[in-house]
Amino acid sequence: MNIKEELKRRARLVDEALEKYLPPDHEHPAVIHEAMRYSVFAGGKRLRPILVLAAAEAVGDEAGAASAMPVACALELIHTYSLVHDDLPAMDNDDFRRGRPTNHKVYGEAMAILAGDALLTTAFELMGQSAGKFSPQAVNRVVVEIAQAAGSQGLIGGQVVDTLSENKKVEASVLEYIHRHKTGALFRAAIRSGAILNGASEEQLQALTVYAEQMGLAFQIKDDLLDIEGEQEKIGKPVGSDVKNQKATYPALYGMEKARKMAGLAAEEAVAALKIFGPKGEFLRSIMHFIINRDH
Amino acid sequence: MNIKEELKRRARLVDEALEKYLPPDHEHPAVIHEAMRYSVFAGGKRLRPILVLAAAEAVGDEAGAASAMPVACALELIHTYSLVHDDLPAMDNDDFRRGRPTNHKVYGEAMAILAGDALLTTAFELMGQSAGKFSPQAVNRVVVEIAQAAGSQGLIGGQVVDTLSENKKVEASVLEYIHRHKTGALFRAAIRSGAILNGASEEQLQALTVYAEQMGLAFQIKDDLLDIEGEQEKIGKPVGSDVKNQKATYPALYGMEKARKMAGLAAEEAVAALKIFGPKGEFLRSIMHFIINRDH
Repeated sequence: MNIKEELKRRARLVDEALEKYLPPDHEHPAVIHEAMRYSVFAGGKRLRPILVLAAAEAVGDEAGAASAMPVACALELIHTYSLVHDDLPAMDNDDFRRGRPTNHKVYGEAMAILAGDALLTTAFELMGQSAGKFSPQAVNRVVVEIAQAAGSQGLIGGQVVDTLSENKKVEASVLEYIHRHKTGALFRAAIRSGAILNGASEEQLQALTVYAEQMGLAFQIKDDLLDIEGEQEKIGKPVGSDVKNQKATYPALYGMEKARKMAGLAAEEAVAALKIFGPKGEFLRSIMHFIINRDH
Repeated sequence: MNIKEELKRRARLVDEALEKYLPPDHEHPAVIHEAMRYSVFAGGKRLRPILVLAAAEAVGDEAGAASAMPVACALELIHTYSLVHDDLPAMDNDDFRRGRPTNHKVYGEAMAILAGDALLTTAFELMGQSAGKFSPQAVNRVVVEIAQAAGSQGLIGGQVVDTLSENKKVEASVLEYIHRHKTGALFRAAIRSGAILNGASEEQLQALTVYAEQMGLAFQIKDDLLDIEGEQEKIGKPVGSDVKNQKATYPALYGMEKARKMAGLAAEEAVAALKIFGPKGEFLRSIMHFIINRDH
């Protein structure tokens, strides 16, 4: 399997589904639907939806996994809403994201706030609508799982601590809190949700949770490293912007060498957790390798 | 029944439940939980949760209705989040709400945005958690119902059109769109959700939908009238602020006399729709009378 090609192929499937699930941009009131679509179709890698589907495939049949598409897309909408709100002037005040003007630069602050709100709301609508395809109990469990991962003790909690820590020297435990919540929680919820929907056993769910947590850590450290070592046109933002903004990062705290080792170790542990899946863990294994070796 | 006392009693029950469901304000990261609680416990009438429970009582037994409390509270959290975001500088830029400084005046814009996001997210967590007490299918249906009411073609859609219409002369159809979505959609979802959870028949659901829509209209017109005729200390904001902000209102479009008549007519239609419930419709009937006669 060529993992890059496979990820692209799957990202296209996710894009097609998002196209279908989001209200068309001429739907009244048009400007909010345009604003929602502007940020959703901004060239993301669709990693979270792909992880939902991959986890579902690892524990069950392919048809079941394919039915997880609405929940997969819900994760992408939550990820996108968090970026739209994070970029706002009152938050990180970013003018560019993935090489394009941020949502509020195009649609204004009011509409960017509302578009974020609407993306978050649509995410839960999609989850509820996948009810026909799985046990309704599993769907309810996934709603709770994702809401907790996205909430004040998940994604939002991470953003809060990140905001409070800006321009301050942070300890390792704070850095870990930020990343485990701001990035890790949604990865974890993506993988667990796909698995829960497609009937994972408790043992499978535990193994995938370890995979998710270690993968999330490796992903974040790699992100921090790319901010220093990457090429601007590939990562879509100026190299060194974390350093400039005095962001808490792993290289800042541990140095490049140690950070690189930590990422490698986390990736190894993630892969080790997949052992019980045998060949059915192959795709998740490849995703881990891709994440640790990516250049953007 | 003394409706004022009964509403107060029920609002206290809702407050107790909200107190229990929301993370304590010392929970890490404390500031977000403080900010969430600041706006939730700001002296609201808890009308939306009370309507969830009242609709549930009208169609089924009291024990079932009491189990709808998490969903009832979810509606209040969505209402509160929408107020927190609406008050932001980029939106209505309001410094006071119910006589107290608005969320962003106390916690800053970043935290107010995040607190709103967290309230919306917690609302869906609560819905998912009520799964054990009702048929999981009904819970899923309610998640979709409420997400649609709160989304880009519901509450948020109303806010979008309201924002676009500020300082413009609007037609009757635009005013109706704004209110049917900005206020009406959540009332409708509250009443329908309570009914769906507690096993309403299709006939009952239809009747309650008519009640909800007419009641929402009467509520909004009354709100507009109070902004002109009310007393500042009772309504918690300066009298005439809608006129000052050139907000689209029913009195502005139709005049006081006609607006008053429209509110009365809507209230009558709401009450008429309750006929099939006999004595079990009494509380909803009293709520309608209370709304049309309130002075704040």
